[in-house]
Amino acid sequence: MKFSIERGVLVKAVAQAQSVVERRNTIPILANVLIEASGETVSFRATDLDIEVVDKALAQVEQAGSTTVSAVTLHEIVRKLPDGALVTLTDDAGKGRLTVEAGRSMFSLATLPKEDFPVMASSEYQTTFKAPAPVLRRLFDKSKFAISTEETRYYLNGVYMHVADGEEGRVLRCVATDGHRLARIDAPLPAEAESMPGVIVPRKTVGELRKLLDDDEAEITVSVSETKVRFATPTITLTSKVIDGTFPDYSRVIPMGNTRRMEVDAGDFAKAVDRVATVSSERSRAVKLALEEDKLVLSVNAPDSGAAEEELVVAYADERLEIGFNAKYLLEIASQVDRENAVFMFNSSGDPTLMREGNDTSAIYVVMPMRV
Amino acid sequence: MKFSIERGVLVKAVAQAQSVVERRNTIPILANVLIEASGETVSFRATDLDIEVVDKALAQVEQAGSTTVSAVTLHEIVRKLPDGALVTLTDDAGKGRLTVEAGRSMFSLATLPKEDFPVMASSEYQTTFKAPAPVLRRLFDKSKFAISTEETRYYLNGVYMHVADGEEGRVLRCVATDGHRLARIDAPLPAEAESMPGVIVPRKTVGELRKLLDDDEAEITVSVSETKVRFATPTITLTSKVIDGTFPDYSRVIPMGNTRRMEVDAGDFAKAVDRVATVSSERSRAVKLALEEDKLVLSVNAPDSGAAEEELVVAYADERLEIGFNAKYLLEIASQVDRENAVFMFNSSGDPTLMREGNDTSAIYVVMPMRV
Repeated sequence: MKFSIERGVLVKAVAQAQSVVERRNTIPILANVLIEASGETVSFRATDLDIEVVDKALAQVEQAGSTTVSAVTLHEIVRKLPDGALVTLTDDAGKGRLTVEAGRSMFSLATLPKEDFPVMASSEYQTTFKAPAPVLRRLFDKSKFAISTEETRYYLNGVYMHVADGEEGRVLRCVATDGHRLARIDAPLPAEAESMPGVIVPRKTVGELRKLLDDDEAEITVSVSETKVRFATPTITLTSKVIDGTFPDYSRVIPMGNTRRMEVDAGDFAKAVDRVATVSSERSRAVKLALEEDKLVLSVNAPDSGAAEEELVVAYADERLEIGFNAKYLLEIASQVDRENAVFMFNSSGDPTLMREGNDTSAIYVVMPMRV
Repeated sequence: MKFSIERGVLVKAVAQAQSVVERRNTIPILANVLIEASGETVSFRATDLDIEVVDKALAQVEQAGSTTVSAVTLHEIVRKLPDGALVTLTDDAGKGRLTVEAGRSMFSLATLPKEDFPVMASSEYQTTFKAPAPVLRRLFDKSKFAISTEETRYYLNGVYMHVADGEEGRVLRCVATDGHRLARIDAPLPAEAESMPGVIVPRKTVGELRKLLDDDEAEITVSVSETKVRFATPTITLTSKVIDGTFPDYSRVIPMGNTRRMEVDAGDFAKAVDRVATVSSERSRAVKLALEEDKLVLSVNAPDSGAAEEELVVAYADERLEIGFNAKYLLEIASQVDRENAVFMFNSSGDPTLMREGNDTSAIYVVMPMRV
């Protein structure tokens, strides 16, 4: 194998591969990227056995072939080469070495046989549809903060992507929850997506996927089966196993009958929560919300270190209410609001509270109260 | 005690205090800042028993007095208050609480008695002189990287500031070394500094001092005794114990007779060292320098992972030489060079090498070779 490629193109292709590779590997080949050159294209493939990413780039291929080399080392080297350099990679299978040359630099890296590289089995996908990158970005960005980190509840360690009935027809929906808070984000159902099986997309996959979604113009091809999900642009293909479990029936925890409505500037609210929470150093800091007509008083009481109180002007026309929440959860949901005011729908101090942006029901958040 | 102060002024004053405070304290009062208000001034004092910082700020003092409160919590609160806010601090000694008010925010923080706060004993200073901030900044910035982290060699855990004979007369000199490399930085001797005893300024003090030196126009008053050193601007006073030990006779390790001279662009050199070192994942990566007429070949050989080689054009007119160094040390000294080319003076492959900027001897670096 021998090919030449522009340094910038190579950095980009190897960057995605090395990010999938786990830093601590007991199986040496999993630290490597599989490089395959043929025709005018070179592909870079990396896997952690659950996720596989393949990145294709144009190159001047002099001799077709393939080999595997440490993804992290290759990325580091190429990143440090001067901008604009032409990089030539030559595999010497006999010596088990890959030579990387650019200008007056020459590197020789240990390779492992390509035959040992675990290429993910290809599979049949039940559904394939296309969605613009910004739509998928919104679905995952606004839901991922609620993914559970509890390993025993493995079925909550991802975002549940599925087809559901929204208020205005069928929607593509992403839901994540850890039992304390929940995010439910809807987008119009893309053509051809109707028959998609619901899948739980693991946390790491959500993170890797994010890198495919930066380009506003990109169209992503999404393929889904019962066991796998694939996101593809013309150059990058990200394939991932989905979590083998049943996502709980989240609809039962979404309070649709809450009637006490508070509207507040989301930025002011978040800043005030952040300030009052400062006096407590506990991990789960409880903030008390005391509501009366058009007035919200936020307070924290930490007997050891002190107390804090802050008043906010809000729109509220119901009877007095006191309710407590984990400060971190309040901050996280308030920071999801980017266009309009935050609207909170309360019931009683013991019931889950619903939050949304203005009257938009395509993104709703539920947060459980805390005793204060 | 009661006073009002502009939020920006308060943030700055408390920031320096909370940075001296250690994050994990077994003595509760050491987590606190001592606030003393009288006349038109409020002072903020913090200590870790080795370093004490006092920051003075103008304020509208309604009632003189003093108290102590958590430095980190106060800093966090004030930092989060809106820009331009007027902050009022009121001490309620009876309740053991300090109230912090700004706009619609109100905080009440637990205080500890001011009597318990360990104010550093004042002492007689043998020498007091003034030096411009940029001069001290250069002395400490260019030497601190070589401070040892080995706790058993405690007398190397700081920068040795003393008066010495430079090539053009008496100088104020800072030296740091960890036995593998050494930095020796000179500045013209300030008036009144001649009688200064040599002191070892601890690493943490060097870090805290750096914050006083940002202002190019500032004049720093330096006071030195056998046991303490003090750096002061009109508003901030930083007092520190010095390391109780004898700094070794560094002059014996500075090779003045090395004759083999190599001159190289410091930036190109650093980048090349960084690149070739990538192939080895070892902590102490050895880079080999092979010199012949006007040519330097850098190489690294890591049998497990690979090899790297890079050629640089240099000015060198002596006989062939091969010498090895720790890559990290080479990178660190090369990054000290900011105006001219780096000049290396070699002797043999087993002898310490000297590096300086052009022909300037006011900043020299020594690095021990490694067998390669």
